[in-house]
Amino acid sequence: VTYPALERLIAELNRLPGLGERTAARMAYYIVRSSKQAHAPHASLAHDLAQALLGALEHTHMCSECGIWCESDVCNTCQNIHRNNRQLCVVENVSDVRAVENTGVFKGLYHVLHGVLAPLQGIGPEELKLNRLVERVHAQGFEEVILATNAHVEGDATAMYITQLLQPLGVKITRLASGIPRGGELEYLDKATVSKAFQDRR
Amino acid sequence: VTYPALERLIAELNRLPGLGERTAARMAYYIVRSSKQAHAPHASLAHDLAQALLGALEHTHMCSECGIWCESDVCNTCQNIHRNNRQLCVVENVSDVRAVENTGVFKGLYHVLHGVLAPLQGIGPEELKLNRLVERVHAQGFEEVILATNAHVEGDATAMYITQLLQPLGVKITRLASGIPRGGELEYLDKATVSKAFQDRR
Repeated sequence: VTYPALERLIAELNRLPGLGERTAARMAYYIVRSSKQAHAPHASLAHDLAQALLGALEHTHMCSECGIWCESDVCNTCQNIHRNNRQLCVVENVSDVRAVENTGVFKGLYHVLHGVLAPLQGIGPEELKLNRLVERVHAQGFEEVILATNAHVEGDATAMYITQLLQPLGVKITRLASGIPRGGELEYLDKATVSKAFQDRR
Repeated sequence: VTYPALERLIAELNRLPGLGERTAARMAYYIVRSSKQAHAPHASLAHDLAQALLGALEHTHMCSECGIWCESDVCNTCQNIHRNNRQLCVVENVSDVRAVENTGVFKGLYHVLHGVLAPLQGIGPEELKLNRLVERVHAQGFEEVILATNAHVEGDATAMYITQLLQPLGVKITRLASGIPRGGELEYLDKATVSKAFQDRR
């Protein structure tokens, strides 16, 4: 019993990260049901989501400076004269920028790698466009580069590689502190986190 | 810092059931990134998903017999002469049909309620189109109606209501067994499941 249009929607939803086939099917049914119940097909979830997808595909570009998704050649953050242009925060993904911005603690500029070094998956320095990072640090005279890649093996390795790249330029290089998260309880944390917190105690 | 096209995509994805704002944002970034990396925009995830949404909206209809989503007036299951037309299985949602079909244990016909009775949310017998169910049972001479609404309070109440509706028609009415799931361990199951299993022991 196959219905091509619905099965195709399930298959496409299934391509999204973290969505299994069963969840994709439930979503597809939900989309069709709510869209059929909408007063007009052109005001339905299916139609709105399709429009949003095509709009994002058409209007979103990668900022030629920092790599954030934006709607012009250079993003609002890079063009914002109120940002501190002495500090650069290097992150893995655009969602990390969102997470940092939500804290309000950082007012400098960003550099998005769009990944981490993962030689086994064929992701080397070329794929991360690290040349562009070196160019920016060289040209723009940052005082500090904060390496905010995630606290796992690949994130650490990438941070170490970038440190070696940037050290000759004489810029101050820091790495986000790693340790017990706020509210974290020792007995529920993994060994690696607790060991690291001991090593880096201050 | 807002980018309308991307923010709109996040907002639309956020309307899907079970997707929080953070997951919606991660998905939107994933869609944009993978679509920008595709060889051609017209072969990208964003484009494929948009097409699938519009296709499902256009081609999917509700079967006038059983309520399954299909691409014609009457679905393949209702038209299939190899199905047992003496047994009718009443389920809450189309995803329940999928779950039952996956077991291969049932070869009869279906009736999808598209919900359960929930007076507090304004879902009464009218909204579930229970008249259509009575008509079908009356007209099509089923020998058995299997009530497969889910094993929670609303599912039980809906099954009880349907039993009262159909009893005058003289059809045999059964309800799916409720009890310890296969592989379930008593110590990890909730009290209601264990009590029910004791009451219904056989």
